[in-house]
Amino acid sequence: MIAHSFHGEIFGPAQRLHGATYVVDVEFRRESIAPSGVVVDIGRASDALRAILGEMSYRNLDDEPAFSGQNTTTEFLAKVVFDRMARRVDAGELGAGSEGLASLKVTLHESHVAWASYEAPLR
Amino acid sequence: MIAHSFHGEIFGPAQRLHGATYVVDVEFRRESIAPSGVVVDIGRASDALRAILGEMSYRNLDDEPAFSGQNTTTEFLAKVVFDRMARRVDAGELGAGSEGLASLKVTLHESHVAWASYEAPLR
Amino acid sequence: MIAHSFHGEIFGPAQRLHGATYVVDVEFRRESIAPSGVVVDIGRASDALRAILGEMSYRNLDDEPAFSGQNTTTEFLAKVVFDRMARRVDAGELGAGSEGLASLKVTLHESHVAWASYEAPLR
Amino acid sequence: MIAHSFHGEIFGPAQRLHGATYVVDVEFRRESIAPSGVVVDIGRASDALRAILGEMSYRNLDDEPAFSGQNTTTEFLAKVVFDRMARRVDAGELGAGSEGLASLKVTLHESHVAWASYEAPLR
Amino acid sequence: MIAHSFHGEIFGPAQRLHGATYVVDVEFRRESIAPSGVVVDIGRASDALRAILGEMSYRNLDDEPAFSGQNTTTEFLAKVVFDRMARRVDAGELGAGSEGLASLKVTLHESHVAWASYEAPLR
Amino acid sequence: MIAHSFHGEIFGPAQRLHGATYVVDVEFRRESIAPSGVVVDIGRASDALRAILGEMSYRNLDDEPAFSGQNTTTEFLAKVVFDRMARRVDAGELGAGSEGLASLKVTLHESHVAWASYEAPLR
Repeated sequence: MIAHSFHGEIFGPAQRLHGATYVVDVEFRRESIAPSGVVVDIGRASDALRAILGEMSYRNLDDEPAFSGQNTTTEFLAKVVFDRMARRVDAGELGAGSEGLASLKVTLHESHVAWASYEAPLR
Repeated sequence: MIAHSFHGEIFGPAQRLHGATYVVDVEFRRESIAPSGVVVDIGRASDALRAILGEMSYRNLDDEPAFSGQNTTTEFLAKVVFDRMARRVDAGELGAGSEGLASLKVTLHESHVAWASYEAPLR
Repeated sequence: MIAHSFHGEIFGPAQRLHGATYVVDVEFRRESIAPSGVVVDIGRASDALRAILGEMSYRNLDDEPAFSGQNTTTEFLAKVVFDRMARRVDAGELGAGSEGLASLKVTLHESHVAWASYEAPLR
Repeated sequence: MIAHSFHGEIFGPAQRLHGATYVVDVEFRRESIAPSGVVVDIGRASDALRAILGEMSYRNLDDEPAFSGQNTTTEFLAKVVFDRMARRVDAGELGAGSEGLASLKVTLHESHVAWASYEAPLR
Repeated sequence: MIAHSFHGEIFGPAQRLHGATYVVDVEFRRESIAPSGVVVDIGRASDALRAILGEMSYRNLDDEPAFSGQNTTTEFLAKVVFDRMARRVDAGELGAGSEGLASLKVTLHESHVAWASYEAPLR
Repeated sequence: MIAHSFHGEIFGPAQRLHGATYVVDVEFRRESIAPSGVVVDIGRASDALRAILGEMSYRNLDDEPAFSGQNTTTEFLAKVVFDRMARRVDAGELGAGSEGLASLKVTLHESHVAWASYEAPLR
């Protein structure tokens, strides 16, 4: 649940300071299921996502140095979540077997009708 | 899609400026269906709701004189939408037959897990 | 999934022959849970609902004698489903214990944003 | 996410040991909004619900002494959650202002098509 | 909300005149986010979709010359919406930056359980 | 609606006997729409899915010989449904035109926040 404002005529009234609830889904993909029978340790994956969202939640994103000079659109934030999750995967935070993850897809739902996703392979 | 902040320790991190998407449902009720077969003219009802939400959308509610000194919680905003819709019903804006409306229920969904409703009889 | 058209200027373009998917929920209510631990036999209740909807599905409701001269609005159809289900409850079709049912609520969802309900006590 | 089995022919194949995911909503109601602008402290309410569900989660309910001799139907479990939440409200666990709560409604969704609710006034 | 009928035994009772509500989603994709931070101008995209759906809404598709001799199945209509949106993208109706769109996916939800999608690259 | 337990510390409390409701979606894909205007005969596809799920429903999967020594995770079960559906497609059970199906995607929703999918080409 964040506040922000956008720059550019294309955004119309969203140029004013406003806000959004983002419901965030992350899809973890691999070629085949790990021996334990899972794609990812869902407990660790949930912890990682919670940590990433905690860095942004209940804030005015216009004041966040990390996003300075950026329109923090739903698309942009989907990529931010992707990048931060990918870094945690690379760092081994998702536990044994997570080196087998092939790609991620991050979706931010901003309302019942609008959402944005970012997907890409992992290194 | 609004920005706001709350006053009071009970709100924790939501004391900071943040924001929310509200998906808003209004339920119109009457004792029995009008002769035309409807409870309310859904076109006029949608127009009225759009106008009410337009007064709040893409704004920082902390700066709205109408809400000065108030925590604009989901519960509070549900009552605001109720009161404004009730006033429009009373003013006849919902068209022929709307004098037969008995009560309203307004629900604001703030996320996939949290919502608040306000319901009460009309005059 | 039915076709129909409406009479009256209030309906705008819905005066033309068009159609709708209705997703139908029925809520069965009683004062306290029956000894078996259920409110209603959900198998029998589902069969009854399926039979009721089967009488209307894949039809042009403008051609149904039962609805002659009526606008088959979502509100009207919610009452039709209510009445037909109430009749089946009264006839004992929902099995042992169903005489303890106190009221029903029938909801027809016509899209992701519009729905109508009809609720009333049972005899 | 629980396992259980039912006794009685009415349950058909559900007489065998099977299981269910329950998505649980609790609705807190009061006559008018508290001065802070909320109906209930949603943080404390969520903690209380998490504690109540934690007493049942990842278990075979057939082995729980508290439910001995009972069909742990969705209806029955909705009342269990209601009773346990009501007790916590009475004990003051939901914090300042919660003595103004008038009633609760607990809903357990067992699938995309079936759910059961239990609602009653609080003392 | 349209009426139609199908030809072919495979369609069973759907060979009769009936109807459907379609809830329509369009997914716009590009290799990387445009400098403004968006994938597409959501205002223009919504206007384009509204125009496309307006050409079909509240009609009996059996009477539409454009669909003559065709079963207007959910799959077929998903492709119709795709083709019409692709044409508008090519015509520049979606504004500056839309020439960077790589592909579209159109989904028509016909009920809570059935949907069809059509996806393909743009020229 | 099944019961099961998991082996391995990674599963925490899910090592105990518990259960789940799975809401199952199958996506059938082909390069282009069949002449009849459909991707697949939805009646036959639904019958096939119902048969496949019937082999698992209302059971304790720990007791099923077919899954002996396996963690019947959501991911694993998605592949089981995929394999069984693929076999039925190959056997011609989905009727005329189904030889044109190119790939399947099976999704099992285990709650409002967790799901797993398995997708692959058909032979």
